[in-house]
Amino acid sequence: MTSTSTNPSTPAVVPDPAAGQAVRAADRAHVFHSWSAQGLIEPLPVAGGEGSYFWDYDGNRYLDFSSQLVNTNIGHQHPKVVAAIQEQAGRMCTMAPGFAVDVRAEAARLVAERTPGDLDKIFWTNGGAEAVENAVRMAKLHTGRPKVMSTYRSYHGHTSAAIHITGEPRRWANDTGSAGAVHFFGPHLYRSHFYAETQEQESERALAHLEETIVYEGPGTIAAVILETVPGTAGVLVPPPGYLAGVREICDRHGIVFILDEVMAGFGRTGAWFAADHFGVTPDLITFAKGVNSGYVPLGGVAISAEIAATFDKRPYPGGLTYSGHPLACGSAVATMNAMAEEGIVEQAAQIGENIIGPALREIAGRHPSVGEVRGMGVFWALDLVRDKETREPLVPYNASGADNAPMAEFAAACKRGGVWPFVNMNRTHVVPPCTISEAEVKEGLAVLDEALGAADAHTTSGRG
Amino acid sequence: MTSTSTNPSTPAVVPDPAAGQAVRAADRAHVFHSWSAQGLIEPLPVAGGEGSYFWDYDGNRYLDFSSQLVNTNIGHQHPKVVAAIQEQAGRMCTMAPGFAVDVRAEAARLVAERTPGDLDKIFWTNGGAEAVENAVRMAKLHTGRPKVMSTYRSYHGHTSAAIHITGEPRRWANDTGSAGAVHFFGPHLYRSHFYAETQEQESERALAHLEETIVYEGPGTIAAVILETVPGTAGVLVPPPGYLAGVREICDRHGIVFILDEVMAGFGRTGAWFAADHFGVTPDLITFAKGVNSGYVPLGGVAISAEIAATFDKRPYPGGLTYSGHPLACGSAVATMNAMAEEGIVEQAAQIGENIIGPALREIAGRHPSVGEVRGMGVFWALDLVRDKETREPLVPYNASGADNAPMAEFAAACKRGGVWPFVNMNRTHVVPPCTISEAEVKEGLAVLDEALGAADAHTTSGRG
Repeated sequence: MTSTSTNPSTPAVVPDPAAGQAVRAADRAHVFHSWSAQGLIEPLPVAGGEGSYFWDYDGNRYLDFSSQLVNTNIGHQHPKVVAAIQEQAGRMCTMAPGFAVDVRAEAARLVAERTPGDLDKIFWTNGGAEAVENAVRMAKLHTGRPKVMSTYRSYHGHTSAAIHITGEPRRWANDTGSAGAVHFFGPHLYRSHFYAETQEQESERALAHLEETIVYEGPGTIAAVILETVPGTAGVLVPPPGYLAGVREICDRHGIVFILDEVMAGFGRTGAWFAADHFGVTPDLITFAKGVNSGYVPLGGVAISAEIAATFDKRPYPGGLTYSGHPLACGSAVATMNAMAEEGIVEQAAQIGENIIGPALREIAGRHPSVGEVRGMGVFWALDLVRDKETREPLVPYNASGADNAPMAEFAAACKRGGVWPFVNMNRTHVVPPCTISEAEVKEGLAVLDEALGAADAHTTSGRG
Repeated sequence: MTSTSTNPSTPAVVPDPAAGQAVRAADRAHVFHSWSAQGLIEPLPVAGGEGSYFWDYDGNRYLDFSSQLVNTNIGHQHPKVVAAIQEQAGRMCTMAPGFAVDVRAEAARLVAERTPGDLDKIFWTNGGAEAVENAVRMAKLHTGRPKVMSTYRSYHGHTSAAIHITGEPRRWANDTGSAGAVHFFGPHLYRSHFYAETQEQESERALAHLEETIVYEGPGTIAAVILETVPGTAGVLVPPPGYLAGVREICDRHGIVFILDEVMAGFGRTGAWFAADHFGVTPDLITFAKGVNSGYVPLGGVAISAEIAATFDKRPYPGGLTYSGHPLACGSAVATMNAMAEEGIVEQAAQIGENIIGPALREIAGRHPSVGEVRGMGVFWALDLVRDKETREPLVPYNASGADNAPMAEFAAACKRGGVWPFVNMNRTHVVPPCTISEAEVKEGLAVLDEALGAADAHTTSGRG
């Protein structure tokens, strides 16, 4: 496959298959990959990326409909962020967390300026999992309570506390059954756990379910409820009206810390700086990473309310890491937030989601028996693929692999052949390009997606009928 | 205090107190600091660093006897590493972990080339804690056993699994008592738990203690023994002859995975690429971070034996992170390892430790009633400070704070007044400068240390007698 770009600013891809083979060989000899059976993967050697595209060594260019792992909100190699990293590298790469450093403070100020309410103190980490680890720690120490509640259909990170509160299969192999993690069901009307028929009903019943679960768990044992504001990898599950405000009220009533995990949803992904902005809700803690600097340098953090910060005013906060507030990472975050503000990138994501991606996906859904539901906002969308629109049976079983997962594998392969790199999880494909994607690029990608859905259609009841 | 450098390459420090005040104000408004009571700290605004020095905004320059948090093994702002970061930033900042990327593979090859035995597969993380999280996960899945054994007097990181196996007070506030962590005593002749009088006896008895603890814990329940090869923050506890080989033999006999944590000890700190090299021992897993790229970009990893890697050949490894094998971080690691090799930096650390630091510290110890023991190797040394050389009573109680810790606080303040930034932990000061420190810089720093020890001497029995 060789796609030709509609974006004139993307450099020509110069194939160099021999170099690609060398990278492939070195990778297989020495790199142990995440979440994978090492002998069953064939990592694609990637030579570079720019804007909405990246390319391999064989002359293939891919429109990045995944934003890598939904982190390059500002696209690949944004020139202002690259320049800021180069400048900061020349000035100060690293400095221990005990010191005050200009970019460490300025990045914190820029995040605090964007957070709702009085979440104005920032604890810096290297990524989202560590942010969640520390938010959970703060909540437990602030309340003196041992347990954390989170939803099935969630992902909060790979470290021990974070993976235990995760609500999808990546938890299973790591679950010791002893980490004080309690899972409940969040709202998801299309696959309602509550037999609801409207968003209002789903919201009400999901809140009643949470309330009753807390009653039986014992409110005095619950330190925190943590939710992804819009659960991401689980399927871009935009919460129904009133749900997050209802959780806020329940938490307040029981003295429970409310944590919103915005690692994936934050910094433009939903068309707002924080997804919480859409719902008018102020949590006590926000965890973030990815979009804060598009992952150009590893960085994450926790935004902390005044009340929780005050808990650690005279009492030491017992958490930390060598690279907390890393100058190179913070320098890149300053440049990223400033570039996003100057160039209206968050607004661009909102606009393209509302005017282009949403309408187009709904139109596509109408043409394909495999598309059960379209949901999302900004540049954060999912197509829920089904065997049958009536029964809503998922196109592949939960956590399928091998032959069971063939329909999704065929769909993904068709996307790649068409020059689009998709984000695929279970029976869903997510449309999660950079916030900076142009209208022409969106259209180019959606045309490929539209065609690739033929592979999914073939596995529906109508496709086989 | 204004010190004048003996190092002509260090740029002149241009004071700018107003800028420093602005950084201080922004820091206090928005940065939540590690391991601290936020209202009781006064983070020093730092303006820059180069080589063995860093400086504040008031014209004060500090010889960095701490290597920040014992991570800048190559010194501040090494020009080859800075240039490599700038070049890599222009080429490719980030790419998802599922792809093969040139610098991701090359950095893995360079680490694998340096590890003992067949630890030739590298899983990349953002830092040491995540490396430990993943090493523990691999060991548990490889063995099917639930518990991990580690020593008191150890630090393994801040995330949940890592902090539970840590053996010092930073664990206490985070300990749920349910994480399958079993602590035992490692060897430490100066404060022997085993009533030993020689290093040989300490080694033998510590091994017998470990063996008997395993017998009572149940060997079939122990997934791993994890040790810092040379426990670092706990006091640079160089293991006695035969100890690590003995642990290796015990682990082999019981089917236990042997993990060496080289986050602090690796990459030149002890005067070898890995501290394990000094002891002729090959573990099953090595965790590393810090020195691999001197922390210029957040990076850590696990080096994995062929046998453990094979466990995840057909079965998915259930761990991962968005920034695993981060290109900017890996690019800086390639440059760091190459520069260290080209410039003989590991050999320099070995030489300066053996010929300059060790002899000088022993001489200093002879002059000061407060110095109970000198121990270390390479650029990894500790002075164990005591109230009385006979009783070996620590100069301050374990985990002291406030007035109880005054003797150490006075000593640290004296170092800083003299232009040396010390690494102080409990009743110890560590001498842990960059591997690149010059003989002249070592002498400059030790002269300050020598004088500052007067503050400690005043709190000894002889000082008060």
